[in-house]
Amino acid sequence: MQNTDNLDFLFHPRTIAIAGVSNKANKFNFGLKFLEGLTQYGFPGKIYPVNPTGGKIKGMTIYRSVKDIPGQVDFIISAIPAPYTPQLVDEAAEKDVRAIHFFTSGFGEIEDDEGRRLQAEIIDRAKRGGIRIIGPNCLGLYCPSGGLAFNSDFEKTGGSVAMISQSGGNAAHCIHDGTSRGIYFSKVISMGNGADLNESDYLDYLAQDPETRIITAYLEGTRQGSRFFEALKTAARAKPTIILKVGTSESGAEAAVSHTTALSGSDQIWNGILQQAGAIRAGSIEEMMDIALAFEKLPAPAGNRIAIVGIGGGASVLLADDFSHAGLALPKISDTLRHRLMRVFSSEAGRIFKNPIDLNHFETPEKFFKTLSTLDQSDEADLLVIHVALDHFGLVSSQEKELWVETYLQLITQAQKQLVKPLAVVLHSYSSKAMNALAHKALKEMAQAGIAAFPSIPRAAAALGKFTRYHDRRMA
Amino acid sequence: MQNTDNLDFLFHPRTIAIAGVSNKANKFNFGLKFLEGLTQYGFPGKIYPVNPTGGKIKGMTIYRSVKDIPGQVDFIISAIPAPYTPQLVDEAAEKDVRAIHFFTSGFGEIEDDEGRRLQAEIIDRAKRGGIRIIGPNCLGLYCPSGGLAFNSDFEKTGGSVAMISQSGGNAAHCIHDGTSRGIYFSKVISMGNGADLNESDYLDYLAQDPETRIITAYLEGTRQGSRFFEALKTAARAKPTIILKVGTSESGAEAAVSHTTALSGSDQIWNGILQQAGAIRAGSIEEMMDIALAFEKLPAPAGNRIAIVGIGGGASVLLADDFSHAGLALPKISDTLRHRLMRVFSSEAGRIFKNPIDLNHFETPEKFFKTLSTLDQSDEADLLVIHVALDHFGLVSSQEKELWVETYLQLITQAQKQLVKPLAVVLHSYSSKAMNALAHKALKEMAQAGIAAFPSIPRAAAALGKFTRYHDRRMA
Repeated sequence: MQNTDNLDFLFHPRTIAIAGVSNKANKFNFGLKFLEGLTQYGFPGKIYPVNPTGGKIKGMTIYRSVKDIPGQVDFIISAIPAPYTPQLVDEAAEKDVRAIHFFTSGFGEIEDDEGRRLQAEIIDRAKRGGIRIIGPNCLGLYCPSGGLAFNSDFEKTGGSVAMISQSGGNAAHCIHDGTSRGIYFSKVISMGNGADLNESDYLDYLAQDPETRIITAYLEGTRQGSRFFEALKTAARAKPTIILKVGTSESGAEAAVSHTTALSGSDQIWNGILQQAGAIRAGSIEEMMDIALAFEKLPAPAGNRIAIVGIGGGASVLLADDFSHAGLALPKISDTLRHRLMRVFSSEAGRIFKNPIDLNHFETPEKFFKTLSTLDQSDEADLLVIHVALDHFGLVSSQEKELWVETYLQLITQAQKQLVKPLAVVLHSYSSKAMNALAHKALKEMAQAGIAAFPSIPRAAAALGKFTRYHDRRMA
Repeated sequence: MQNTDNLDFLFHPRTIAIAGVSNKANKFNFGLKFLEGLTQYGFPGKIYPVNPTGGKIKGMTIYRSVKDIPGQVDFIISAIPAPYTPQLVDEAAEKDVRAIHFFTSGFGEIEDDEGRRLQAEIIDRAKRGGIRIIGPNCLGLYCPSGGLAFNSDFEKTGGSVAMISQSGGNAAHCIHDGTSRGIYFSKVISMGNGADLNESDYLDYLAQDPETRIITAYLEGTRQGSRFFEALKTAARAKPTIILKVGTSESGAEAAVSHTTALSGSDQIWNGILQQAGAIRAGSIEEMMDIALAFEKLPAPAGNRIAIVGIGGGASVLLADDFSHAGLALPKISDTLRHRLMRVFSSEAGRIFKNPIDLNHFETPEKFFKTLSTLDQSDEADLLVIHVALDHFGLVSSQEKELWVETYLQLITQAQKQLVKPLAVVLHSYSSKAMNALAHKALKEMAQAGIAAFPSIPRAAAALGKFTRYHDRRMA
């Protein structure tokens, strides 16, 4: 049995066999979906389809058994029915396979003694054969550097954010959401029931994985309380570790049992565990990705004082409320700084040089940039935020707004390179059709330029609040 | 002075003069923006541009004074500098104008004695002249049935949701957001400083306005505590009244003072006022629109028991947690109902007939519809929710998902017409480019079909929680 401290072999197999690839048209031919996913994503190694019926698929030979495959097989993806899995494990052991990912469901997660018995049996056989198991009942691995993906649409660019997920759907959601916002992943593990390798094993591994800088996890529960606590503590000491622990309601806990058999445990106990371990607790999938974005894109701030610049009195009030309630400080701007800012403009008329700073009209890029650099050079804030509320400009036509957004984008990209303090962007209020299209383009361009951009005031506030609190704690 | 119980005359002027329309190119020519907004939106009456310089604009005569306009002028939009406004009021009084909307800023909202003096003066002159004032320092009115809009992009279709806003930007945001989701407006009032007509006047009016079925308001504060409480109580007794009261933090309260001079008041006192009056308190702009959507589209539920149907174990846990925490009950499904549901399908394999119900695979429209109608006929839930998580289907290609969404849409539209219980939809998880485009199309089609669709689990939970709590209280 391998040391779980190094699970690199899972993420860089040279050859993969896919058990359960049928060449018959069938909408539940999941083996074929894995095959298509890997080939279209561009897995660089050899792929072998396996099915007792034999035959051909997409010009590839379907092997009747793993044992018939010529040469070494490093990894198996199994989409075969549960009753055939013990035999697959034995054959894999004979072939010196190192790991099997069981997409196959019908094990411990169903309320059925036979399922539980089968799960125990495959784990037992795998242990004896020196094979590690991912799952069962999961979508498996996404690792751009290893050419692994369970969906051909997944982003090819890799990054430094890892995710452990007790839900394949939530993992897929995060991969799509993250990569659309400039969060690129090192490894995403949809771990299912975690019958062999579990959340603690993956945490141990990711804590020391040089490719991973930030760890996220969607957890429904854990079976190894104290071991998990140790693993979490180690991980959180090494890297920002963001946990979405669900099953916090009675109904949610019951849904979790049906889903992955995870026992959710008391939410208060979990709060204590996460806090003591130094992990960051996220309240939703969206928030977990928002916090990861902050860590991915922003340098550590020196404190929690934030200065906000944008246009719109109503937006300023919303920003001030939400950022304050999230634990961020909006210090009053000193007279000295206020006069310095006023000198950027010809007059104060129509502008509010408080915090948030409301420029009221859209300014020339030079003046906007001068405002930012004046704040950047001051000692009165640790973090800068620009907010752009597209649908707020009540009197302005869509065409004019398009020009503005172009200018804003230029300016933000330029500013982000030149400012010393961390700079985050809130691009919000873009429901109209024209502004929605514009915002999605702008968000994508900002993501590519390495800028942390949030899609609403409440979401930006929650994420930046937890981001700065983490750094405050680390400095304390 | 007119009775504020009937402000209909504000929303259906036959003629509008716009003071401050310049025919010189100037990016701050806001009078021209109002002119373009009204003409392009399709205001059916006469529009007269006014400017002391005279001349022509877009083929229209620019009158040197309101007094020079031939015939009656019902309404004036003023975009002239503050110092000239007292004279405008006097001239308007001579012309028997009934109301002036002052877009003009530089009055009570600036920290300046002259501004405050000017504001008192125009209000005094208006009172003597029998003129009502909207503003100053605001974007004014949007009323589709009167052909009024301050932006030509605004939706032409009118509806039954009203909004009072102490921020023009937030009003514009809500108009774009609402109409993109099937929330159509009766009247939106960007009221600015509210120096004459204020939030209480508008509440009084909307409470008895037959065009208005649901009232929303973005408030930074009020100057007439007890009168406001009475107005709110009357409004909330008559119609669902959803209030976003901001300035709840020290920074937010200060930003509110700079913005509209509104004194925010203690948040605890506001909580008490809103609760006693029977109003619904929203926590954000997004939530205010989400709650309005629920009231606009859903019939009153008989209670707070919710049954959720969709695909995805992880999504089920998130839904169960968020809906429970929002105060909704997710009752356990009885054995009788469970067996009835199982009979819809050939077997239970891969499905979870708990609540949320996880169908695991996408089913035929017939089976999905049968599941819904079985729940609809049961006595075990008061509200039904379908959730569709596009990016969750980890193994499925974008093309296949497109087909699914088409089928889902058909089914949801069909179901919504046939079910007795209220049905809400959560369409979530669509960050990938293909799914984002698909979701926006689907959300738009659902909006047009009169379906309440929410863009994320947390937002659906918060809105439906407040929606059912309102009905619970009304029944108690």
